[in-house]
Amino acid sequence: MTQYPTWFDAEDDRTALAAWSRLTEPCDPAAVRWIDSCGPAGALRRLLAGAGASCGEPGPEHRARWGVRLPCLDPVRDLRTLSGAGGRLLVPGDRQWPDDLDLLGPRRPLCLWVIGAGDLRRACEKGVCLVGARASTGYGERLARNLAAGCVERGYSVVSGAAYGIDGTAHRATLAADGVTVAVLACGVDRTYPRGHDHLFARIKERGCLVSEIPPGSAPTRWRFIRRNRLIAALGKVTVVVEAAWRSGTMITAREAAELGRPVGAVPGPVTSAASAGCHRLLRDGATCVTDCAEIAELLAPIGTDLSDPVTAPTAEHDGLSCPDLRVLDAVPLRRPVALGPLCRAAGLTETDVSAALGRLVLRGLVHREGTGWCRRRPGRPQDREH
Amino acid sequence: MTQYPTWFDAEDDRTALAAWSRLTEPCDPAAVRWIDSCGPAGALRRLLAGAGASCGEPGPEHRARWGVRLPCLDPVRDLRTLSGAGGRLLVPGDRQWPDDLDLLGPRRPLCLWVIGAGDLRRACEKGVCLVGARASTGYGERLARNLAAGCVERGYSVVSGAAYGIDGTAHRATLAADGVTVAVLACGVDRTYPRGHDHLFARIKERGCLVSEIPPGSAPTRWRFIRRNRLIAALGKVTVVVEAAWRSGTMITAREAAELGRPVGAVPGPVTSAASAGCHRLLRDGATCVTDCAEIAELLAPIGTDLSDPVTAPTAEHDGLSCPDLRVLDAVPLRRPVALGPLCRAAGLTETDVSAALGRLVLRGLVHREGTGWCRRRPGRPQDREH
Repeated sequence: MTQYPTWFDAEDDRTALAAWSRLTEPCDPAAVRWIDSCGPAGALRRLLAGAGASCGEPGPEHRARWGVRLPCLDPVRDLRTLSGAGGRLLVPGDRQWPDDLDLLGPRRPLCLWVIGAGDLRRACEKGVCLVGARASTGYGERLARNLAAGCVERGYSVVSGAAYGIDGTAHRATLAADGVTVAVLACGVDRTYPRGHDHLFARIKERGCLVSEIPPGSAPTRWRFIRRNRLIAALGKVTVVVEAAWRSGTMITAREAAELGRPVGAVPGPVTSAASAGCHRLLRDGATCVTDCAEIAELLAPIGTDLSDPVTAPTAEHDGLSCPDLRVLDAVPLRRPVALGPLCRAAGLTETDVSAALGRLVLRGLVHREGTGWCRRRPGRPQDREH
Repeated sequence: MTQYPTWFDAEDDRTALAAWSRLTEPCDPAAVRWIDSCGPAGALRRLLAGAGASCGEPGPEHRARWGVRLPCLDPVRDLRTLSGAGGRLLVPGDRQWPDDLDLLGPRRPLCLWVIGAGDLRRACEKGVCLVGARASTGYGERLARNLAAGCVERGYSVVSGAAYGIDGTAHRATLAADGVTVAVLACGVDRTYPRGHDHLFARIKERGCLVSEIPPGSAPTRWRFIRRNRLIAALGKVTVVVEAAWRSGTMITAREAAELGRPVGAVPGPVTSAASAGCHRLLRDGATCVTDCAEIAELLAPIGTDLSDPVTAPTAEHDGLSCPDLRVLDAVPLRRPVALGPLCRAAGLTETDVSAALGRLVLRGLVHREGTGWCRRRPGRPQDREH
């Protein structure tokens, strides 16, 4: 008969998920499928018992892999560490569990280790991922600040990866605007990585959330960074890349978002800037060009809704003129008045058409009758020729 | 019986087209349709004779309009002015007539007044329109220079509008690289507009062409500038907007190109630059993001051909590592060697998997055996943590 560890409780799926999160590395479809079929505690009981693989059960290579960390497994201690840091474990079905994680299918996280006063589910319901390069430029950081502030103004929360550069700038600008921000980490939520962000992490906890799928104390690894990006993509409704090198983790986040069917935006920049090369690559691959927060709102809105700010282009005097009116206006000289005949020849229009057009142009104040001729309204004023 | 002008010759379609070009303003579908049905001289004869409108003929309002300039019409003088300036008239069917103008349908030009040593047809067969703002920035001008030079290198000619700013820069850079360039004007080809480009026009004539659909001596007007843009779009195989304000003539050229089914490229720039706002608008409307000449070549190439320069992204030591190898490499410490057991727990993999991965990593020179443990190959070398 199997000797189960003292912490094991066949009724406690929550603790079992915490255990699974320790036994596996992020993104383990075989574990998700087994847990889906036997329940977290049920699958763990079978693993602990070394029950022989039956039809539909994971093969011995999976069990061997998960068994590697069994000897030092202690989920109760992990949960105690988490609550000591003021955190909570979220599992599927919890009120704060973001249902969008289900979009990841068997690549979904088993549970989330969370610290922070924010309501993760609500934050993600209107979450915008603002992500980008660690090696950001002043240009990209300014954009990240503007976009984050615009997101807060529109009631969105900002999801990012807590890295130096664009991520950190986006978190900080969101907090500065009294917004809610979610940082998805590649290490345990009780750790501060990168170190220089300890103050930022403290502030995120006050209003938002620090989130990780791996247990407290875990170190960040490349593998975890790469897999973490799918969580960022799934936790926001739209992903906007502010700056990214041609090949970078940010590009992975954008790809993950696209694979989830989420809109992907990319902010253009100078083509001479390596920090924008990834954005331009995304634009070529079908991402939407995003230059301000109104355009993020458009990505979030149902198709057909136009939420962009009305563009206030400078208007010219000839705006909205019909074809004959524009041709007649073109023909009227600035100062020296000209008679109807030459106007007709210059415009290539009949006297009837030119007379009618002159009437409309006089009404609009663009043309002025002087003696037997016409000239522009204020002959003395210098005017630019604008085509 | 009608008294025809002395210059009129019912057999001379070429002179008749020159006449029609004077009687009409650019883009007169009714004139094109009449000319298509009766021939240029035939339609002109009917107009001169004031023949009553029969079924399928243009209505009196069109005839009255074309009649306005009849009294001072003298196409022979116009042709003499052109040849005096070293130019030639091109009409449909001429060897140098660019057949792509037919794409414009009834909006096509009636004839082209051309000056320059270049072969217009050949130039347009591999023509790239590089167009943009008159109010260009140093950034846009640098890009225009690079793209024009790249076009010449690939054997393309450069079509543009001879304006200050991006257009002029593109023409100039093409000439500097010994390339062929075509300037499409909104005034007579014997006039220099803008004035500051007189030296540039002289150089364009040496190798390329100055082209206009309106007769010598004609002044540029807004109407002519607007309609001129359709000729630029039709004369190049692809249109690339380097810089453009949100609303500008350049945007019209891009729209014309798109309506002709031509690929449209837009060069991104800082979102903070008003001179790039039009480009970003085009990107949102479906234009292709263009950052170098290789990407223009892609637009020109048949779909499926990849002509872009191979991107040389810096490679990292963990490039191309398989999943277990990356997880094991993540687990191997930089300096202090660690034994197999802890490596297995850190990577979450079995001894079999970790041993195999270590073998591969040792072969790649990434990991080094030291005593009973493993560490990174060169423990002393400082290494960046790159995710």
